[in-house]
Amino acid sequence: LSILLYNKLDNADRWRAAFQEVLPDLPMVTRETMGEPGEIRYAVVWQPEPGVLGELPNLRAIFNLGAGVDGILRDASLPADIPIVRLRDAGMATQITEYALYGTLHYHRDFDRYAGFQRAADWTELPNRRAGDRPVGVMGLGVLGADVAAKLAMLGFDVSGWSRSPKTLPDVSCFHGDDGVQAFLSRCEILIVALPLTDDTRGFLDARRIAWLPDGAALVNLARGPLVVEADLLAALEGGKLRGALLDVFNEEPLPADNPLWRHPKVIVTPHIAAQTRVREGAAQIAAEIRRMEEGGAPSQTVDRSLGY
Amino acid sequence: LSILLYNKLDNADRWRAAFQEVLPDLPMVTRETMGEPGEIRYAVVWQPEPGVLGELPNLRAIFNLGAGVDGILRDASLPADIPIVRLRDAGMATQITEYALYGTLHYHRDFDRYAGFQRAADWTELPNRRAGDRPVGVMGLGVLGADVAAKLAMLGFDVSGWSRSPKTLPDVSCFHGDDGVQAFLSRCEILIVALPLTDDTRGFLDARRIAWLPDGAALVNLARGPLVVEADLLAALEGGKLRGALLDVFNEEPLPADNPLWRHPKVIVTPHIAAQTRVREGAAQIAAEIRRMEEGGAPSQTVDRSLGY
Repeated sequence: LSILLYNKLDNADRWRAAFQEVLPDLPMVTRETMGEPGEIRYAVVWQPEPGVLGELPNLRAIFNLGAGVDGILRDASLPADIPIVRLRDAGMATQITEYALYGTLHYHRDFDRYAGFQRAADWTELPNRRAGDRPVGVMGLGVLGADVAAKLAMLGFDVSGWSRSPKTLPDVSCFHGDDGVQAFLSRCEILIVALPLTDDTRGFLDARRIAWLPDGAALVNLARGPLVVEADLLAALEGGKLRGALLDVFNEEPLPADNPLWRHPKVIVTPHIAAQTRVREGAAQIAAEIRRMEEGGAPSQTVDRSLGY
Repeated sequence: LSILLYNKLDNADRWRAAFQEVLPDLPMVTRETMGEPGEIRYAVVWQPEPGVLGELPNLRAIFNLGAGVDGILRDASLPADIPIVRLRDAGMATQITEYALYGTLHYHRDFDRYAGFQRAADWTELPNRRAGDRPVGVMGLGVLGADVAAKLAMLGFDVSGWSRSPKTLPDVSCFHGDDGVQAFLSRCEILIVALPLTDDTRGFLDARRIAWLPDGAALVNLARGPLVVEADLLAALEGGKLRGALLDVFNEEPLPADNPLWRHPKVIVTPHIAAQTRVREGAAQIAAEIRRMEEGGAPSQTVDRSLGY
């Protein structure tokens, strides 16, 4: 009985140390050191290579070290009956919300425009808009998107939200389903993308849907790169449809040095840091799930594979 | 009986229109159109030239169209017994807090460093610090500073505050007085300056006090330029003591085109827009005060000239 820690993580050593503290009796192995695949009962992974999870005949659960499970579900060898367990937040909501608030305030308070004025030593005042007169939209109302929407509402913004199925959130105008997309997007002067990446959402923000945004809208993508069609985004920035974009995620990561987004004057690039899983919280949550399963219980927070999240 | 609207305002026409709506019976004049100075009973001003207020023999109250009254108190001709009335907020706290949150998140989430990485197409991840592990300080705990501190605490930051006299705010470690300055500053990785400008606070943040900040601290000044000794700030930025500064206010405004702050890579300049007085709210508040005084009452929210705020 041992745990596979899929070792493509930058900070695998920190995870190993955290697990040794909370699960001192369970050996933690990597793919290189694991010996007999049949000994692995639990896998703790982040974007494993396809095929890795299919090699483990006695696997009981897969734990995903992040919010989105698209990196697991794309694996065709994935055993059909093994539960995939998501972390409950683990400090991610706070970080995502900080990032979303930053992006919202950046455009709401014209810091993009003032940066241009500063380059010209130009002291030009723009009128401040009331937060209540600023429509901000959150696309995706899971744990993370809902926290973003709640904090934006608390700061007084005119917040809308969109989700696949109907939701109700206090102080948020909620839209849902395919029929709600255009009505939702048409009121988002600032759009925060917090969708999971699924077959339905891949390429969701394409030229047609970007055109539904108000002219001069700003985009904040803190979810997954492939939700947005990068060429269409670039065209919308070039053509003036979009005022700017704050992007944490990309089709290819690390973002290749020759990708024009790095150098685009209307784009802020960050290297997928909107949320980092907190090692201690994450290890403690996974340890609690493993103990529950070892005592015969079922894991909580499992992924619905048909939905993709 | 009439009201003087001191006409150096950029948006004097909007103020005039707003006053005509809420006080239709009182003529609103400018210095050029006022005729007999003895007819002026109330003055509504923003940074009037010295001497203007001393010319009005029957003045009963001076209303300041902004948060800080340093622009009035520096006038040696100011009649000693005329109450100076400050606006209660008028939408300013919300704006100030947005600006302060933006500055805090900018440094807390390393957007300054990522901007440097972006210029080099460098995909380098920095570890996110927990908000609770990030000490942020608010210097000045009036209506505006207290709102900033409360919202920062709500977002989970480790918030300290400093004020001249003792204060108690929920979830804020409060320091006060001369004796508390060093202990306060030594824990501010991000310092928000929200002090009034008085004889005591002019030049408050000089080389000696800046040295009390932790190495690599960031400064956000959204109050008044002369609170900070500009040469000492530049030296601290150059020498690496300070990581960066977000500055809305300056010794001379508009900031002269040859001032090095415009071009400093560690400085973000905005043109005194952290808070703009909301015309409708401001006019409604002043109208209510004037009605109270016309019915024999005393104005509220008057300035204590000995304190300077």
